[in-house]
Amino acid sequence: MNHLAKPSFSHYLPFLSWLKDYRRQDLSDDVFAGIITAILLVPQGIAYSILAGLPPQLGLYASILPPIFYALFGTSRTLSVGPVSIAAIMIASALTAPAVSALGYPVQSALILSLESGVIMLLMAVLRMGGLVNFISHPVLTGFTSGAALLIIGSQLPQTLGLKTPDCGIDVACYTDYIQGFNSVTLLLSLSALALLLLFSQLLPTILKKMGVKLTIITAISKCGPLLTVVLATIAVSFLTNKGHSVAVVGVVPSGFPELSIDAITDSLSQRGKLLLPYAAFIALIAYIESVAIAKVTANLRSEKITPNQELIGLGAANIAAALSGGMPVAGGFSRTMVNFSAGARTQMAMLIAATLLAIAVMYCSPWFTNIPKAALAVIILVAITPLVKIKTILHTWAYDRGDGIAEVVTLLGVLALGIEEGIALGIILTIASHLRKTSQPHIAIVGRVPDTEHYRNIKRHHVQTWNHLLLIRIDESLTFANISYIEEFLSTELKRRPNTHHIVLIFTSVSDIDTTALEALESLNQALQAVGKTLNIAETKGPVLDKLQKTDFLRQLTGQVFFRTEDAVKQLG
Amino acid sequence: MNHLAKPSFSHYLPFLSWLKDYRRQDLSDDVFAGIITAILLVPQGIAYSILAGLPPQLGLYASILPPIFYALFGTSRTLSVGPVSIAAIMIASALTAPAVSALGYPVQSALILSLESGVIMLLMAVLRMGGLVNFISHPVLTGFTSGAALLIIGSQLPQTLGLKTPDCGIDVACYTDYIQGFNSVTLLLSLSALALLLLFSQLLPTILKKMGVKLTIITAISKCGPLLTVVLATIAVSFLTNKGHSVAVVGVVPSGFPELSIDAITDSLSQRGKLLLPYAAFIALIAYIESVAIAKVTANLRSEKITPNQELIGLGAANIAAALSGGMPVAGGFSRTMVNFSAGARTQMAMLIAATLLAIAVMYCSPWFTNIPKAALAVIILVAITPLVKIKTILHTWAYDRGDGIAEVVTLLGVLALGIEEGIALGIILTIASHLRKTSQPHIAIVGRVPDTEHYRNIKRHHVQTWNHLLLIRIDESLTFANISYIEEFLSTELKRRPNTHHIVLIFTSVSDIDTTALEALESLNQALQAVGKTLNIAETKGPVLDKLQKTDFLRQLTGQVFFRTEDAVKQLG
Repeated sequence: MNHLAKPSFSHYLPFLSWLKDYRRQDLSDDVFAGIITAILLVPQGIAYSILAGLPPQLGLYASILPPIFYALFGTSRTLSVGPVSIAAIMIASALTAPAVSALGYPVQSALILSLESGVIMLLMAVLRMGGLVNFISHPVLTGFTSGAALLIIGSQLPQTLGLKTPDCGIDVACYTDYIQGFNSVTLLLSLSALALLLLFSQLLPTILKKMGVKLTIITAISKCGPLLTVVLATIAVSFLTNKGHSVAVVGVVPSGFPELSIDAITDSLSQRGKLLLPYAAFIALIAYIESVAIAKVTANLRSEKITPNQELIGLGAANIAAALSGGMPVAGGFSRTMVNFSAGARTQMAMLIAATLLAIAVMYCSPWFTNIPKAALAVIILVAITPLVKIKTILHTWAYDRGDGIAEVVTLLGVLALGIEEGIALGIILTIASHLRKTSQPHIAIVGRVPDTEHYRNIKRHHVQTWNHLLLIRIDESLTFANISYIEEFLSTELKRRPNTHHIVLIFTSVSDIDTTALEALESLNQALQAVGKTLNIAETKGPVLDKLQKTDFLRQLTGQVFFRTEDAVKQLG
Repeated sequence: MNHLAKPSFSHYLPFLSWLKDYRRQDLSDDVFAGIITAILLVPQGIAYSILAGLPPQLGLYASILPPIFYALFGTSRTLSVGPVSIAAIMIASALTAPAVSALGYPVQSALILSLESGVIMLLMAVLRMGGLVNFISHPVLTGFTSGAALLIIGSQLPQTLGLKTPDCGIDVACYTDYIQGFNSVTLLLSLSALALLLLFSQLLPTILKKMGVKLTIITAISKCGPLLTVVLATIAVSFLTNKGHSVAVVGVVPSGFPELSIDAITDSLSQRGKLLLPYAAFIALIAYIESVAIAKVTANLRSEKITPNQELIGLGAANIAAALSGGMPVAGGFSRTMVNFSAGARTQMAMLIAATLLAIAVMYCSPWFTNIPKAALAVIILVAITPLVKIKTILHTWAYDRGDGIAEVVTLLGVLALGIEEGIALGIILTIASHLRKTSQPHIAIVGRVPDTEHYRNIKRHHVQTWNHLLLIRIDESLTFANISYIEEFLSTELKRRPNTHHIVLIFTSVSDIDTTALEALESLNQALQAVGKTLNIAETKGPVLDKLQKTDFLRQLTGQVFFRTEDAVKQLG
């Protein structure tokens, strides 16, 4: 067999690699995890589609075919693909944009968003652009997530009070009036739901742990909180309605599945499709970044491997599947994936089981969904989303790296003040600009010899030996168009400060490349030094850099010499 | 006197610094250079305004007040500010854009371009954005200039044949018909002009040099070529017209000066001003970059100093002066500055004299300009512009650095195929993208000890001593969000290839910073290694990096140790 053959089937269909070693024990683990994840998916699916401003079934449909497609093409064994909160608020932002909302038919728009973000991911995979996401730094991402979470909190709090979204702007008096219109029955329901959720997520695990219950069992029990909350709240609603109280509920959820439809494809070619494209691009970007981030966390814990480009294919396929089966855009959910993982999921079989259970629920249980109170769903979202507002991380970042801290805070404020898409765009621009600025001011050190050694260190930080007519300069980055002006400026300032310098030695320990612009600058520097009778020397030049320079006239025209080690330069010129 | 006082007057008015030491000899040198430069300015001013699609006087007016303002505020002593070819073709591109040309009144648009590019430069000065131009690399600039020069050649060739611009698209038959409409008298005139120009620029200097004539005299004589060509061609035209031949001429040039007018300021607030703004931004950018580039060349030759930010003020003031005095946008001209410099100009006094001579010419000689044949001006432009098509440089770049070569060629083709502004925008995007890509793949070397020394070198390039359970990895760049994924990937691959590794030592000789994203990645790496019983160590960490790390938990949680030198790590772990 030729081992250099084309990538195997299992490269493009990663599930084959786990399927061939699949064992009985894996199945029982996966079945258990699948059930737990399904129990979480039902309330999340309904809650996130309402958060997105869509009918509840779009979140449920998004929990069936998309995870199946991800299971076939994705590389993470435990990622739970489906509706997620951050994507939901981004969908809401797109659907409420004036131009989009003027077109009406939000469901149609949502399906186009699914399709377009899926296609964008596949395109990114083809162009091998998976690495580009590295240009969104963690601080920008944290700022974005925290900002989006705050927006979600702001959108859900009124629901818990039985209020509509306020329309007060900055009129404080208006808010006072507004808040007084709260529904006390709804508030009571919300507080009870909150208590139940906190009981399951915080108190019960602690108690069970003390009782020595197995960890997966604890996870299973604690993750039933949301479903139990929904069930009890729904029962409470029937009771309250009979008593004449009115509580906002989800409403009718159609039974069974929509027909698979390619309408989204034809629709996307319309004006609506063009309008939605930039929103889809941002959704694709964020969905991809967040999915890969959480996929990496769980993969690292089990020494499995995530292939970013294949992830684009998996997530792209999942989103296209969402579009064709009537679902909202999907991504890998952070909390749900952690639940799936800690409930013991071994492979994507768990998600296949969860999807099957969801399909059964959609077919047979949808009448039960009608009376789920929106307030209970809002509380579930609030409990899930609050940890995403990472105040502590932001404070830490601020203390560690001021530039990163500023980027984080500006992105957060950008999301709140300008909007979701504007915030993330601002963050990306900031990151790239600060990266350019940083890389255009490389670290440069004037060095001297540590006495009685062959080591050379920064004269500012160490007591070192120096020579009057010899200037040893270590440049700590590759020389490029971006930083060469700064380097020229540095050299010219130092030469003016040290008029007795006769030989300049540039130490290239850290120089991995010299681009055309930098080469031209070195050539001018060499000529300028020649004109005033000084010499330019280079030392510690790496092999590839020397190979490249040998193709030019630079080394031949060099007024000084090329030294292997700094020590050699000092011995000869010092 | 307090030396830490505010910047002195001469900081903002750089001419004060040369004026206070001004001597008699300087004056005689400057007068001579000023006359030569004025002789060049007259035909250039007329030719470049016609190239821009404007009446000839806009180029002449641009040669009077703008250089005077530059002389007051600019830092170069020899830069000749006035109409330049590249800016002219950019103006032509703006004026012929459908939306702009639909508004009519090209002169009004040109004045707005002058004003807006001047204001943009001043704004850049205030925001201290002079350094931003470093993000246009030399290859992109060469590609842009070569492309623009080719466009200029394409626009001027028809003039030399007495033809209008062709309107054939890709219809070859059409071109055949088109070319047959050439005017033989005009062609003859063009060829004679070309012969005369080449005689003065190439042949005569060689002969005079052999005869031992002084270099400044040779420069002076050779630079009279264009004016003499214009004079002789104009005389020839009068002669030819009398004989009944028709040759396209410049036409009436109004005598005297236009009144100073602030119309441009009010006009710029209109729809027209908004439309022209992006064009003005590109003109400002290119005018600034090219001016500083040539200013640096002449300044280096005399150990003078250019202050980029003050250049923005000088050029900005010059462009605003152009707008108020009815002139087209200006910049420092490459060839004209070299002429001014080699004719012996010591200071901007030379340009003040040239501007005075131009003013006299505009007042008393404009009737003589009417019959200048356009063909002669086209030949002057062609001779001046052809050297800007830098085929040789492009080939050299291609050989030296493939990435730079591609950027250069793509920018050139972009200018030709997409247009001036699109080409330069493409070049800038390319440069930033390639910079991001490069900096996201830092050089990483696995190192070993050079036997019997304390030096550590790349195992791929040197015969070095290594240890089975010890992996020494030198990372040659700062650790940031942009490159940390690549580094993680590298480490995980190497660890898989070397399962016996027990201690990993990261050598931070070249690491000047670790940002938040990279710190988080190091923390995960440390945890992952701890989980499999391996240790992470760092060595040769620079002071500022260590200071920063000390603010975090990283060093406390580190599974291994922090070593001062790699040698220490090897002694203890090796």
